[in-house]
Amino acid sequence: MKHLLSAADLSRDEIGQILDTAAEMHDVQRREVKKLPALRGRTVVNLFFEDSTRTRSSFEIAGKWLSADVINVSAKGSSVSKGESLRDTALTIAAMGVDGMVIRHHASGAPHQVAQWVDAAIVNAGDGTHEHPTQALLDAYTMQQRLGDLAGKHVAIVGDLTHSRVVRSNLLLLKTLGAQVTLVAPPTLMPSGIVDWAKADGFTLSEDFDAVLPTVDAVMMLRVQKERMTGGYFPTPREYTVHYGLTRDRLKLLPEHAVICHPGPMNRGLEIAADAADEARSSILDQVSAGVAVRMSVLYYLLGGAA
Amino acid sequence: MKHLLSAADLSRDEIGQILDTAAEMHDVQRREVKKLPALRGRTVVNLFFEDSTRTRSSFEIAGKWLSADVINVSAKGSSVSKGESLRDTALTIAAMGVDGMVIRHHASGAPHQVAQWVDAAIVNAGDGTHEHPTQALLDAYTMQQRLGDLAGKHVAIVGDLTHSRVVRSNLLLLKTLGAQVTLVAPPTLMPSGIVDWAKADGFTLSEDFDAVLPTVDAVMMLRVQKERMTGGYFPTPREYTVHYGLTRDRLKLLPEHAVICHPGPMNRGLEIAADAADEARSSILDQVSAGVAVRMSVLYYLLGGAA
Amino acid sequence: MKHLLSAADLSRDEIGQILDTAAEMHDVQRREVKKLPALRGRTVVNLFFEDSTRTRSSFEIAGKWLSADVINVSAKGSSVSKGESLRDTALTIAAMGVDGMVIRHHASGAPHQVAQWVDAAIVNAGDGTHEHPTQALLDAYTMQQRLGDLAGKHVAIVGDLTHSRVVRSNLLLLKTLGAQVTLVAPPTLMPSGIVDWAKADGFTLSEDFDAVLPTVDAVMMLRVQKERMTGGYFPTPREYTVHYGLTRDRLKLLPEHAVICHPGPMNRGLEIAADAADEARSSILDQVSAGVAVRMSVLYYLLGGAA
Repeated sequence: MKHLLSAADLSRDEIGQILDTAAEMHDVQRREVKKLPALRGRTVVNLFFEDSTRTRSSFEIAGKWLSADVINVSAKGSSVSKGESLRDTALTIAAMGVDGMVIRHHASGAPHQVAQWVDAAIVNAGDGTHEHPTQALLDAYTMQQRLGDLAGKHVAIVGDLTHSRVVRSNLLLLKTLGAQVTLVAPPTLMPSGIVDWAKADGFTLSEDFDAVLPTVDAVMMLRVQKERMTGGYFPTPREYTVHYGLTRDRLKLLPEHAVICHPGPMNRGLEIAADAADEARSSILDQVSAGVAVRMSVLYYLLGGAA
Repeated sequence: MKHLLSAADLSRDEIGQILDTAAEMHDVQRREVKKLPALRGRTVVNLFFEDSTRTRSSFEIAGKWLSADVINVSAKGSSVSKGESLRDTALTIAAMGVDGMVIRHHASGAPHQVAQWVDAAIVNAGDGTHEHPTQALLDAYTMQQRLGDLAGKHVAIVGDLTHSRVVRSNLLLLKTLGAQVTLVAPPTLMPSGIVDWAKADGFTLSEDFDAVLPTVDAVMMLRVQKERMTGGYFPTPREYTVHYGLTRDRLKLLPEHAVICHPGPMNRGLEIAADAADEARSSILDQVSAGVAVRMSVLYYLLGGAA
Repeated sequence: MKHLLSAADLSRDEIGQILDTAAEMHDVQRREVKKLPALRGRTVVNLFFEDSTRTRSSFEIAGKWLSADVINVSAKGSSVSKGESLRDTALTIAAMGVDGMVIRHHASGAPHQVAQWVDAAIVNAGDGTHEHPTQALLDAYTMQQRLGDLAGKHVAIVGDLTHSRVVRSNLLLLKTLGAQVTLVAPPTLMPSGIVDWAKADGFTLSEDFDAVLPTVDAVMMLRVQKERMTGGYFPTPREYTVHYGLTRDRLKLLPEHAVICHPGPMNRGLEIAADAADEARSSILDQVSAGVAVRMSVLYYLLGGAA
């Protein structure tokens, strides 16, 4: 594995290895002294063309706990704002002698392009509404911790399928792991591309959250991008909550053993009620914790080869 | 001591310990190789909802000299701007496995709230116009270096008592240390809350800087927030300087042994004349230097327990 | 050598030493484990009053590979925006116990001033349109790698001589190294100060790029600041490219052994054609790579004295 660009790049075995190593990293994370020498003398650049404190901090901590040098580069105030092309920016940073680049970009496919231009290992930390493979890995890790092997388990992914960068990576990963997925969304937020793809993969689609909920092992609530709720194709916030929110009432429909996930940041009271976010079945903070462990594991696999 | 939220949390003994350790850290700071292994493998996040280069850099240097991993998180461009609550932001960062969080927030009480939600050690690095306990500690350290034990010493705090986050922490700390304090301000910048409180503690209030000055061991000039000078209750800059500025003329009234302090950044020519800032009695740069040592000491006490 | 403020400060011997050490650092840079203990326990602040991701990252990597603690301070959101003077900002940061300060400032001479106020070693990382000595050093390093000793070699510097901070440092350094320089620019971008100075140093001026090109060993293309192209004294972009761009056609005029340099970020298609940037004679990415090695060398010389 040279890069991590898409969840589709990972075989079942590779996912298993990454998540096993993540479990070891998770043990390190629980220690008082959180530090491994694995990536000493390696340099990772977080190259973020979009702000994402959460993802950037998670990768920064992961890199530092592995003793790597971590450099944050925000596209704001960078040469990018002076009109430099993505290719020249990437080549420039790589030329400094960087071993890995963690890239968040607003354009789908940007990390894939960079991977063709430079020698450094590239991690896709979210490209447009396309993919976010470490998020899918941390979701799988979290669900596995509660549910065991995900093969045959039923996962509902609920909400704005159009604008989420999480859906595609999760579908790819969950398919490889043999899980059964139901996509739940209002028709206006269910893009035909995803629909066709999900059907071809044997996944199910539904507009009826209440019917799906009693059958799931895990329910992944997607963040509503409030700023996109102005368009006519989006229901009002109130309608959204009534039909697609994980409300207090709906919690009764969720099986006792099931897991509640959310990639964060949450809109409490919109796609997820505070009661749902904070109750025992919620794994939302476990996801955050797993995020660091999974990213340590990924960085270790990509950069630790010749330690 | 689990957190440092308020100067009121600190007993006289605890202050003594922190300042004694700060003196040892100050020795490290004067070395060529400024590095202690005390916090290796510990992670500190500087979570700043308001910009403060000075305070953030001081904490960052303090953490790094103790070998901690330090992560800077600015609320600009963070999930906060996506409407996430303070609680969710704090829980998320804590869930990554962070040992300490240094918080600057525009709302009074924010760090106290966070301390109730998370396990990490919280340091209040300024909450609204409320408190800034490490500033009070470094002020005490600096004055002590020049004056010895502060019990019975007379400290004047001069200026905008309404908008300063430094006043309250200093009053609390100086009371614990047995100093005598006089608050000097124009009546419009002397809020009734502070007035009542100061009186209850046996502190003095005055509008007459010239009368107070000859009696002090230390004079702490507060920064004037120029952007707040538009309101009608604020004197003009010129009036302010005439009545409450530490002008060249007023320096003659200040005893030879006395110490001049200012938390910075200064408005030279407004609340403090250049002559006052740069003369021998000024400890303003000593305060900055002490800031790193005091923050090393605080981080060491909060996080170094099981080194 | 206490500071690096100007290329004029460096004797031929000192340049030789810095570039020799840079070559050793370059070897470290090519290693898998890029880490030297040379500056452990030293602290470097990147104090940038202007954004420059490229330069800041290069210095940050250089410092970290030498095991220094590196703190980034951006003037945005700093006390500077609260009206603090450069002197007070510099004194404050120095008072924290910093060993070196790398300064980028929009005002010519700012780093020189700071060097008079503080004890820390100062590196000029670009002051206005004045100097950028580490850029000149990395340019020299890169050209030397391809051309050997630069004495007697012919270097053309082409483009906007008015707004470039690179020209002056390069002229000074190349003179010391005994190279022959021709400045090529449209008359409106050839300021009289530079003209007089170049003439006094025995350098040549030309408006005829095509005549100069066949005689050079190296051609340094300067970045066009597009945002400055609105003034009447600037040719249109199209005219600029026709007369002063390193176009595909002009490549035929460039000797086989010659080196193409550009400080970046490039405006491909404006001052330099994509063909020129990417062909075999182009050393543009070598410059970036050399930048880290040269900055490691400079930081080592300034701060590593008593390692």
